Amino acid sequence: MQKSYVRGTWQQKRAFSPCVITQGAGRTIYVAGHTGQVDDAGKSLAGDFDAQFHQTFRNIEKTLAEAGAKLSDMVTMTMFLIDARYTTRMTELRSALFGTDFPASAAITVQGFAQPEMMIEVQGIAVAD
Amino acid sequence: MQKSYVRGTWQQKRAFSPCVITQGAGRTIYVAGHTGQVDDAGKSLAGDFDAQFHQTFRNIEKTLAEAGAKLSDMVTMTMFLIDARYTTRMTELRSALFGTDFPASAAITVQGFAQPEMMIEVQGIAVAD
Amino acid sequence: MQKSYVRGTWQQKRAFSPCVITQGAGRTIYVAGHTGQVDDAGKSLAGDFDAQFHQTFRNIEKTLAEAGAKLSDMVTMTMFLIDARYTTRMTELRSALFGTDFPASAAITVQGFAQPEMMIEVQGIAVAD
Repeated sequence: MQKSYVRGTWQQKRAFSPCVITQGAGRTIYVAGHTGQVDDAGKSLAGDFDAQFHQTFRNIEKTLAEAGAKLSDMVTMTMFLIDARYTTRMTELRSALFGTDFPASAAITVQGFAQPEMMIEVQGIAVAD
Repeated sequence: MQKSYVRGTWQQKRAFSPCVITQGAGRTIYVAGHTGQVDDAGKSLAGDFDAQFHQTFRNIEKTLAEAGAKLSDMVTMTMFLIDARYTTRMTELRSALFGTDFPASAAITVQGFAQPEMMIEVQGIAVAD
Repeated sequence: MQKSYVRGTWQQKRAFSPCVITQGAGRTIYVAGHTGQVDDAGKSLAGDFDAQFHQTFRNIEKTLAEAGAKLSDMVTMTMFLIDARYTTRMTELRSALFGTDFPASAAITVQGFAQPEMMIEVQGIAVAD
């Protein structure tokens, strides 16, 4: 499987790629919407956006690990946020998380999620050998 | 084409899989957002969430049938809902619909849809031989 | 790579396909959420839905061109809109843009985007040889 990035210009500062291209035999991993309103010990993370962001991606990483894949295999994500004012902070956290090879992504502010404590939900696709 | 599921734990009660993995030669079917605000006879289903849920998936099944595929071929879905309070009911209906092999899914509450009667819209991807 | 369309009936007037089917060796291009709140010269398009629609797709076309693909390679899109009342106008503009071979699509009204001027964001997938 081959993967390449169209990296854009300003998009790198927002920690996403305008597009990611895959080709050839690989596994496509359809990743459900993940959230992070409680930590691994079951403690509520209500009201703490940074903590929910990190927990959400820890949860995604666990799911990907069960599929034999890792976070850097993500090729596209939709980041659903509870408030548009978290968008810039989200991109800062995402930059630290992904480093240089960013998935394609959209950042959408929505009305709500399954539970009122949720502040972020991330759905996407990973492609791995 | 091979398909496998990461089934998770509590996720099975919410009728979705944390991720679904596909590999090998198959057809990928990109399914548009489907809704169910009118029944097959054209009668309005405004205000009836259960009915719109069932009609939405009947419509998806018709589309998949035209592609030579079936509902169990769905690998991921985004369930857009008009009110977060329908989320749990949606998962109950989805459990009855899919049985044991659940697609990946996100449940997102949104501001609205193309028409004011719509209470649910489902977009996704199916993979079939 | 082979591509085929389930074209539906009334869906053609709304400028989308109920589903699009791809099969065989091709490149899958995961396209990030694109917006169009400023034109190519950096001038604000705040408040002008038609202009933002056109700019959004010009931006998508630029991204696809960098991937060696074109707009007609899009197989699915999620159109996030700031107001449900733009939905019909969006389908009119989309009809003129795509002609006859429409991607699958969902039209979802959302709370907001990264910046308050944004009226539309489009995320999707293209498949090309």
